Amino acid sequence: MHQETHINSSNFVRDVIIGMSDGLTVPFALTAGLSGVLDTNHLIIVSGLSEIAAGCISMGLGGFLAGQTEVEHYDSELKREYEEVEKVPETERQEVEAIFIDMGVDKELSKQVTLQISQDKHKWVDFMMRFELGLDKPDKDRAIKSALTIAFSYLAGGFIPLFPYLVTSNNQQGFYFSCIITVIALLIFGYFKSKVTGQPLLKGTLKVALTGIAAAVAAYALAKMVS
Amino acid sequence: MHQETHINSSNFVRDVIIGMSDGLTVPFALTAGLSGVLDTNHLIIVSGLSEIAAGCISMGLGGFLAGQTEVEHYDSELKREYEEVEKVPETERQEVEAIFIDMGVDKELSKQVTLQISQDKHKWVDFMMRFELGLDKPDKDRAIKSALTIAFSYLAGGFIPLFPYLVTSNNQQGFYFSCIITVIALLIFGYFKSKVTGQPLLKGTLKVALTGIAAAVAAYALAKMVS
Repeated sequence: MHQETHINSSNFVRDVIIGMSDGLTVPFALTAGLSGVLDTNHLIIVSGLSEIAAGCISMGLGGFLAGQTEVEHYDSELKREYEEVEKVPETERQEVEAIFIDMGVDKELSKQVTLQISQDKHKWVDFMMRFELGLDKPDKDRAIKSALTIAFSYLAGGFIPLFPYLVTSNNQQGFYFSCIITVIALLIFGYFKSKVTGQPLLKGTLKVALTGIAAAVAAYALAKMVS
Repeated sequence: MHQETHINSSNFVRDVIIGMSDGLTVPFALTAGLSGVLDTNHLIIVSGLSEIAAGCISMGLGGFLAGQTEVEHYDSELKREYEEVEKVPETERQEVEAIFIDMGVDKELSKQVTLQISQDKHKWVDFMMRFELGLDKPDKDRAIKSALTIAFSYLAGGFIPLFPYLVTSNNQQGFYFSCIITVIALLIFGYFKSKVTGQPLLKGTLKVALTGIAAAVAAYALAKMVS
C-alpha cells in the first residue's frame, strides 16, 4: 500500500535515537568539562561511568514506565469506550456522525455510515479509539523492549566519548582524542538519524553534531568558571 | 464535548515531565555516586553543574530539533498529499474508500462518502493527513517552546539534588541532605506526574521515586567499584 512509502521510522529506531542522542552528548560534555579542571583521567572516568549508569537507568526505566503507561492508558480508554457504547449508544452515534460531518460528509450520509459502523461493536469501538481519541493499539511488550533499547543505546553512545580517557595517560590527551572520535560518531549518528527520519542529510547531520558540541562547550565553560 | 473529559496532558506538561524526570534523576545519581569517592564538595559541585549544563542543552536542543522535524515532516507530507490529490485523484479516492470499508462501511456507501469528502480539496487532504497518515497539524512555535520548557525543567530538577552540596561542608553531609530532599522532590513530582497522566497515584508516585533511587544506587555502586 501507498503509505508504506511515506517515511515512518519504527519504534525500535526511535528508541535507538532517543538513547544514543543523549548517550553521545551528555557523557561527552561532562567528561570534556571535567577534563578542563582535573589533571588525571581517573576521576573523569569515574564521573563518566557514574553518569552513564545514571543515564541508562533513568532513560531506560523512563522508557519502561512510558511504555507501561501507554498500554494502561489505552486499556482504560478501551474499557470506557465499550461501556459508553453499551450505556449511551445514541450519544456515541452522534459523536461518530459529528466526526463525519466534520470530514465534509452531509448529514444524511453521515447517519447511514454511522449506522453501519455501529453494527459491529468492536469496529465501532475501534473507530472511536482511532478517530475520536487518536489512540493506536500499543504493543504489549513495548515497555520492556523500549527500556532495553534505550538503555543499551545510551550505554553504547556513552562509551565512545569515555573510551579515550581509558587509553590515554592524561586529561589533555584524553580530551583531544575524545573530541575527535565523538565528533566523528556524532556525524555518523546524525547521518543515519537524518536518513531514517527523512531529513535533509547535510542539515540534519550538522544539527546533531552541533548539539553535541554546544553541550560540551557549555559544560567545559561552566566547569572552568566554577573551579 | 465528551473527549475533553478524557485524560489528555498538554504538550507543555509533557515537556515539563520529560525535562524534570531526567533532571531530578541523573544529577542526583551522579552527585550521589561521586560523593562516595570524593572527600570534598567542590568537585561534586563542578561535576553536577557540568552535567546539568550538558543535560539542559542536550535535551533542550534535542526537543528543539524534534519539534522542528515534526513541523518539517508534516509540511512535506502535506505537500505530497496535495500533489497526489491533484495528480492521481482516483488512486487517492480508492484509498479513502478502503479506509471506510475497513471501518465496517459497505462498498456502495463508502463510495458515496468518499465522493463527498473529495469535493473540497482541503478537507480531502485533511482527511488523508489525519486518517491515512495519522498526522496532526503541529504548532509552529512548538520547537522553541518545547526546547525552553525541557531545558528549564531539567535545570530546576537538577538544582535540587545539587543544592545540598553547596550548603554543607563535606561530602557525607551533602549526600544525606541531597538524598532526603531529592527523594521528597521525586515523590512530589511523581504524585503530580501520576495525576496529570491519569495513573494510579500511589503506584505512579512510587515508580518515579524508585527510578531515581535505582539510578543513584547504580551510580554509587559503580563509582565505588572503579575507585
